[in-house]
Amino acid sequence: MVTANPILIPELRLFLAEGDTVGLREVAEELHPATVAEFSEGLDDREIWQLLDTVPVERQAEIFPYYSMFRQVQLVKSADRVHLGKLLEWMAADNRDDLLRELEPDLVEEILPLVAKAERHDIRMLLSCPENSAGALMTTEYASLPADITAGEAVTRLRTQAPNSESIYYIYVLDSERKLVGFVSLRDLILAKPMAMVSELMQRDVITVRVEEPREQVVQKLARFDFLAIPVVDDRNRLVGIVTHDDVLDAVRQDATDDAQRIAAIAPLGESYLEAAILSMTWKRGVWLTILFATAAVTAMVLARSPIEHVWLVAFIPLVIASGGNSGNQSATLVITALSTGDCQLADWPRILKRECVLGVLLGSLLAVPGYLLALIYAPSPAAATVIPLTILGVVMLGTLVGSVLPLLFRSIGLDPALMSNPFVSAIVDVVGIVLYMLIAIVVLD
Amino acid sequence: MVTANPILIPELRLFLAEGDTVGLREVAEELHPATVAEFSEGLDDREIWQLLDTVPVERQAEIFPYYSMFRQVQLVKSADRVHLGKLLEWMAADNRDDLLRELEPDLVEEILPLVAKAERHDIRMLLSCPENSAGALMTTEYASLPADITAGEAVTRLRTQAPNSESIYYIYVLDSERKLVGFVSLRDLILAKPMAMVSELMQRDVITVRVEEPREQVVQKLARFDFLAIPVVDDRNRLVGIVTHDDVLDAVRQDATDDAQRIAAIAPLGESYLEAAILSMTWKRGVWLTILFATAAVTAMVLARSPIEHVWLVAFIPLVIASGGNSGNQSATLVITALSTGDCQLADWPRILKRECVLGVLLGSLLAVPGYLLALIYAPSPAAATVIPLTILGVVMLGTLVGSVLPLLFRSIGLDPALMSNPFVSAIVDVVGIVLYMLIAIVVLD
Repeated sequence: MVTANPILIPELRLFLAEGDTVGLREVAEELHPATVAEFSEGLDDREIWQLLDTVPVERQAEIFPYYSMFRQVQLVKSADRVHLGKLLEWMAADNRDDLLRELEPDLVEEILPLVAKAERHDIRMLLSCPENSAGALMTTEYASLPADITAGEAVTRLRTQAPNSESIYYIYVLDSERKLVGFVSLRDLILAKPMAMVSELMQRDVITVRVEEPREQVVQKLARFDFLAIPVVDDRNRLVGIVTHDDVLDAVRQDATDDAQRIAAIAPLGESYLEAAILSMTWKRGVWLTILFATAAVTAMVLARSPIEHVWLVAFIPLVIASGGNSGNQSATLVITALSTGDCQLADWPRILKRECVLGVLLGSLLAVPGYLLALIYAPSPAAATVIPLTILGVVMLGTLVGSVLPLLFRSIGLDPALMSNPFVSAIVDVVGIVLYMLIAIVVLD
Repeated sequence: MVTANPILIPELRLFLAEGDTVGLREVAEELHPATVAEFSEGLDDREIWQLLDTVPVERQAEIFPYYSMFRQVQLVKSADRVHLGKLLEWMAADNRDDLLRELEPDLVEEILPLVAKAERHDIRMLLSCPENSAGALMTTEYASLPADITAGEAVTRLRTQAPNSESIYYIYVLDSERKLVGFVSLRDLILAKPMAMVSELMQRDVITVRVEEPREQVVQKLARFDFLAIPVVDDRNRLVGIVTHDDVLDAVRQDATDDAQRIAAIAPLGESYLEAAILSMTWKRGVWLTILFATAAVTAMVLARSPIEHVWLVAFIPLVIASGGNSGNQSATLVITALSTGDCQLADWPRILKRECVLGVLLGSLLAVPGYLLALIYAPSPAAATVIPLTILGVVMLGTLVGSVLPLLFRSIGLDPALMSNPFVSAIVDVVGIVLYMLIAIVVLD
């Protein structure tokens, strides 16, 4: 997906008005497909189809996935059904799958019969994979060979398969049941003696992912081994597809943005910030603001029920709450990012909690010192002023503990830690923090 | 970098004790280099060198970069200097550059004379590139060819260059002055007729990055065009290196974690959560907690100077502050992630501010309703209760405005928006929010 670039729009419109198919074809044929999409995104749907129709459907299928998803859906709706079937046949399987997941199921059922049978089978298989699984990220286009041919023969066969540029560089070696027995890189084939057997050249120790594995693990494996692609197998070790480096990069970038938005209590926009509709954004932010508001309302009700009696203590309410909230927010973010990058596993919980408890004491003590100095200015006596450092120490320890426990807890029951942690951390830390403040004040002052 | 896996440690220690070099060599030779590092990270430095010394230095150079950076530095310190020079010669240029940047400059100057002259030149060039630039991310190992040879000759030349697996798939076509005139993929060479000229096969419209371009832009270009690698050129369009897909993936994952940590007011750990030293983590969190504490102290001082006189209003302090803080946090995160993914540019500021102002009104009105209902319970009269919804509307509008303006402001003066925004957003929103609360209370109630 690319951002629209309006710079060529006037020229394209001129070509369209003059019916200059040669000029249009030159644009659609010569530039990188991403650039074609970028320059033409600003045209209306009919105009884009006029531009695309100047080039063969293979080329159209290369350009099409680079339009924004919203635009792709619009273009599909205004397209001739038969032409659409052809276009889908030529599109890379992973891009096609992304698009079909966005369409109304009825529309998909209407289009599918127009797609060639072999492709239709692949489409149904990919659509049946759960979102966020390896299966949903993979493409069914890959190069495969048997083990009992020579490197020279292998290169000849690859020439006839002529797979797309994504998938020719790793070639998977399958047995007669399509089980994965090894892989060989195009580099190894080129550098090998032409008479060497594929079975000698291939690496047998293949790192794979299962079709139902979560995409986080696909990302971790591909990143760890610096692969161009990672093979996806079913439960009987039969090759069903590959996940390529570019789709992993897109997934990582999307996940990072989604996670950052979830941590800040925003339901992920899933689209470009400037393109998101105002009402949808209001909803995605408003729903969490309302939940956070409800937790703050509980704090207000607690505070209203047993008011803090000494006026100078009121001034410190925001400071006490902020200390707990900030340290809890730090802990939650650290644990969430460590879980999602694979730095930590759920099983590491005893070490995580131990670390956070130690840090809670250290950070709480660190903040208690300026807290005491500040309190000395406003408190009636140095003894009374100790309420503030004691409370700060307590809420910071509480913050680090709650901030680290909740993401682990949500992960352990299968919920997304990034989504759930923020409102609960602030709810617990704020309410318990205020109660702690009042209790310490009563004990010290009365 | 991989996480340590202790499962093979007892077996490796047994091999080491028995001096079983055959067993050790089998481990170091047969597994994926990342797996070798993963399984042996738990050994001590001397034991790791014993393991590595069972295989040729070329293989050692493949395994070495997969140890954690901390470990690599330790291993360098305990290594024989001459051997180290050889190891550095064989290491991929980008990994070597990462390592040398972590070492003391004195140590680097001691080692460099032991590295072959050609490599030494590359090292000095890479080390001179600013961190976070395309130059610091690139490797100087790439395949290049002249334009006036045939595809068959090209493949033969590649066989003799035998570049590593990273860089053989895109071949860059250079003129006599090493200027980049085109590129051709290994796929195109294999599929072409052997007598076709490289100059006919190559694409002339090459997308490049300049050596000093920030790495964010490298990531955006490579992701947009789905490249395996992107060429890096100097100011005269001479090829100086390439940035490969795996380094971009690592950079994106690291940047995403760093950004999430910065947004949560933590100086990026730059290492695994469980491996970070407690004291370093205390510092990286403590420094920002202290800054946030200072901003909360200002709020406390404002509140102490002109105390809120009506007791029921005190109960609403945390709620009012939280509403502003949460909406400001949302806006800041959205703008920061949009800027860092390239969704928005600085030049989009009028559209961003317009969106956030509209959202401030919508979200503020949304929260004002439950705020008014809650206030009715505690306020002496329905008229007095209007203080709460009016303040909420005000602070939410303030939050969205400050949360969106500050990241744009910091970006425009060249500071990292993720690093700077959080403490300033909370400082401004909290203090101004409290003042606004008091002002509205005075106007409505007195």
